[in-house]
Amino acid sequence: MTPTLQLAFDLIARRSVTPDDDGCQALMMERLAAAGFNNEELRFEEVENFWSRRGTEGPLVCFAGHTDVVPTGPEGRWSYPPFTPTIVDGLLYGRGAADMKGSLAAMVVACENFVRKHPNHKGSIAFLITSDEEGPAKNGTVKVVETLEARNEKIDMCIVGEPSSTNAVGDVVKNGRRGSLGAVLHVHGIQGHVAYPHLAKNPVHIAAPALAELAAEHWDEGNEFFPATSFQISNINAGTGATNVIPGELEVVFNFRFSTELTADILKERTHAILDKHGLSYDIDWNLSGEPFLTARGPLVEASVQAIKEVTGRDTELSTAGGTSDGRFIAPTGAQVLELGPCNATIHKLDEHIVAEDLDTLTVIYERILELLLA
Amino acid sequence: MTPTLQLAFDLIARRSVTPDDDGCQALMMERLAAAGFNNEELRFEEVENFWSRRGTEGPLVCFAGHTDVVPTGPEGRWSYPPFTPTIVDGLLYGRGAADMKGSLAAMVVACENFVRKHPNHKGSIAFLITSDEEGPAKNGTVKVVETLEARNEKIDMCIVGEPSSTNAVGDVVKNGRRGSLGAVLHVHGIQGHVAYPHLAKNPVHIAAPALAELAAEHWDEGNEFFPATSFQISNINAGTGATNVIPGELEVVFNFRFSTELTADILKERTHAILDKHGLSYDIDWNLSGEPFLTARGPLVEASVQAIKEVTGRDTELSTAGGTSDGRFIAPTGAQVLELGPCNATIHKLDEHIVAEDLDTLTVIYERILELLLA
Repeated sequence: MTPTLQLAFDLIARRSVTPDDDGCQALMMERLAAAGFNNEELRFEEVENFWSRRGTEGPLVCFAGHTDVVPTGPEGRWSYPPFTPTIVDGLLYGRGAADMKGSLAAMVVACENFVRKHPNHKGSIAFLITSDEEGPAKNGTVKVVETLEARNEKIDMCIVGEPSSTNAVGDVVKNGRRGSLGAVLHVHGIQGHVAYPHLAKNPVHIAAPALAELAAEHWDEGNEFFPATSFQISNINAGTGATNVIPGELEVVFNFRFSTELTADILKERTHAILDKHGLSYDIDWNLSGEPFLTARGPLVEASVQAIKEVTGRDTELSTAGGTSDGRFIAPTGAQVLELGPCNATIHKLDEHIVAEDLDTLTVIYERILELLLA
Repeated sequence: MTPTLQLAFDLIARRSVTPDDDGCQALMMERLAAAGFNNEELRFEEVENFWSRRGTEGPLVCFAGHTDVVPTGPEGRWSYPPFTPTIVDGLLYGRGAADMKGSLAAMVVACENFVRKHPNHKGSIAFLITSDEEGPAKNGTVKVVETLEARNEKIDMCIVGEPSSTNAVGDVVKNGRRGSLGAVLHVHGIQGHVAYPHLAKNPVHIAAPALAELAAEHWDEGNEFFPATSFQISNINAGTGATNVIPGELEVVFNFRFSTELTADILKERTHAILDKHGLSYDIDWNLSGEPFLTARGPLVEASVQAIKEVTGRDTELSTAGGTSDGRFIAPTGAQVLELGPCNATIHKLDEHIVAEDLDTLTVIYERILELLLA
């Protein structure tokens, strides 16, 4: 058993279902302290987080991740107990194997190896670890970043251990994420009886052409790193269930996934312009989950691409597809942010698993990135 | 107490909440038998109905109505107990006073008076009475009409005692009703994650322009007796509640109220044409509540207008507005059908009431119509 796999086993065995950490962070901090890191526990309400740093100079290279995992679903339907890490036919099974305790183990061991070889490395190395990534994400990375900003402690480069890979470790690195802007729209009409439509005002009828225009709108072209911005209605509801009543109100829930060509404010303005053009009486609650971010080519991207090529022989693909991660909270500070981790095919599913030796490969990649940046 | 008010009291005192008759029909049949009518009880499943006829020749003038009433709602909120008919300040209170036990009493007494004066009247007089008008309307008038049709017994003219009047008895007569055609539309898409819209197909987006076109469509102009045909969406639903899931299916419930310029089949064709034009994948369940019907000027309309003018001095308005009645089941047989009854302001509400003396006026109007047609 390699050191990375051993640590991954120890982490997976802890039942850290979000927002519980169940001792994972203490285990990591113990290892990091032994490697010369200064640990700082940062608890916000019920959420445990820590910040750990080795060195005082810049540049500061940070590993970010989370110890919490999503619920297991019915444990009896797993082939192996989800919190009993098990290797069968070269595959490591367990909740968090891919998302993202495997990455955490690789990060810790990579740093141990790197500082052993380079005790007086340039710059600083840090860990930003939360147990609130799979939950509401209110008292985790957001709050730690606020703490760092308040004391002007700047992350220059950040590797988030999210499972970015598709078919083989390192084949895809996420160098940004689309923004996510949600909204709940209420269109106001006047309720009435279908036999007397002149006394009512049907909000579904009034809204239909506006929704058609929103659905057909070409928001942008995307760019080199982002697909075109996408608008999707996730929920639409009106009516009492009675078939002879014209509803008084229509509720529409929709979401934008948007590129760096646009901002949330621009999307709001353009949405309001379409709704207003159609003469709707409405109110709207916006919910910005995250502005888009992009880490264009530069030292972190170059080092990661080179390390992956050297270690695996693969030409990595830079991608901004997929859902959100805590990288959205770190990027606005000006940090270069990348997501690099194992294959994501089984995350959040029953029988979550990865190729066990991918964790050792990932350890060498992480260590090689540190060498390229800080040796 | 006049004979009509006495009979109305006796009917209102019976708790004939739909579909119960609670002895109302037996009381009516007893009176009609005494006036020379032949009664025929026509029970279908739990619903009591009767057909009663005096004479064997044509033309056949029929009074149609129902002994069932809608539920009272909270009885404690009535000013007077709903099944204890009460006259206060000239107003008769009680469930069914307006809809339509008052009319039933007026019809019976009008016929008693008419046959006393004209024992050898021309043609025939009949009653078609159900206790299933306020409920599902499956085992009431529909089945009685089927029975008559099966033996080729034809109603020539039919007065339905529905409360047609607005401000004063006889001010409005309904000489037809719009058709009602309902539908449940399911638009099929492909469910997916909002972050991966290219893997999904949003049925709300696909349907929006089609719904906009249906809502904007000009179906007809209406005609002298009917307002323009109206399309109304009563319910629209899609989505799991989750804000990050593109729904797989959209359900839309809509209803046409349509004039005699169109038929249900034409509306179906035109709806399908619009849905097909927009390339929707869908299925649709149609529910025809009733084709429209119209009794244009002719003997029944002329006699009614004249009788109302003579008795009340009022110029009556012919109207096809409002909801459906059992007239929709009688009109397709080729009968002239009119609705003529007391004021409808309080029907289906707490404290249902009418002006008590309107029932005596209505009795004289019904009798005068019989005289004009059969004396």
